[in-house]
Amino acid sequence: MSTTHDEEPIAKLSTEECWTLLGLAQFGRLAYRLVDEVHLVPINYVADEGTLLFRTASGNKLLAAAMHSEVAFEIDWIDDDVAWSVVVRGRLHRVPEDQAHRADELPLRPWVATFAHDLVELVPHVVTGRRFRLTRDAGDDPPGTR
Amino acid sequence: MSTTHDEEPIAKLSTEECWTLLGLAQFGRLAYRLVDEVHLVPINYVADEGTLLFRTASGNKLLAAAMHSEVAFEIDWIDDDVAWSVVVRGRLHRVPEDQAHRADELPLRPWVATFAHDLVELVPHVVTGRRFRLTRDAGDDPPGTR
Repeated sequence: MSTTHDEEPIAKLSTEECWTLLGLAQFGRLAYRLVDEVHLVPINYVADEGTLLFRTASGNKLLAAAMHSEVAFEIDWIDDDVAWSVVVRGRLHRVPEDQAHRADELPLRPWVATFAHDLVELVPHVVTGRRFRLTRDAGDDPPGTR
Repeated sequence: MSTTHDEEPIAKLSTEECWTLLGLAQFGRLAYRLVDEVHLVPINYVADEGTLLFRTASGNKLLAAAMHSEVAFEIDWIDDDVAWSVVVRGRLHRVPEDQAHRADELPLRPWVATFAHDLVELVPHVVTGRRFRLTRDAGDDPPGTR
């Protein structure tokens, strides 16, 4: 990715690039708020028609879904030279049972053999991505000289 | 990791295992709340004496730090068979300049060549981890037969 970007240390990804990455990944992290607490959980998902779908049986996540809660979802990648991160902000909705067939043809299965029946949709209102050019080679500098 | 765990699909990691993983990783995601919004950002960090340290110059993160905000921080790993996730919940504090030398001997440098001067500490009050045994081989099942 990002071979067309310049050499700036941080570069914005285009919305198209963000969706390409969201379509390729299957695993991210969902942050949501319940009352005054921020929760952060790993989750598998699938991108579908401009939304993100996942299955859950977790009480907290379902509650957040029921509340149409504002959430943030993130995927990222890091190697020696480059990192990128895509963040989706939006609201959760539980998908009604009579529409849950949407997921039948998608590669969305619980990776873990526990019950995870409810289909939840994250409808984005903002999708942002950044690419970071890493400078970890500078790690050989003596401490404190940065 | 986790070779001593049984074959349950989801297993809790011990606190000691969580800190081992936190000590080995350098990159995670921080979720925090500002007013009614949940923010989620990738961040590099270092574990030190039962806390997590990171540098930042981001207005939002600094503001959260200034507010002694309750946050959640997560690291994870996934391969074909197993995933794990460690979540740290706690509060952010900006480390005063006269104590910032704490970081001088630690491998905590900004990976990206931008200004990131302020040292922020996450003081945990809960550290939890889970190991997931993945069942993605079931992905060959016809859709809908799960």
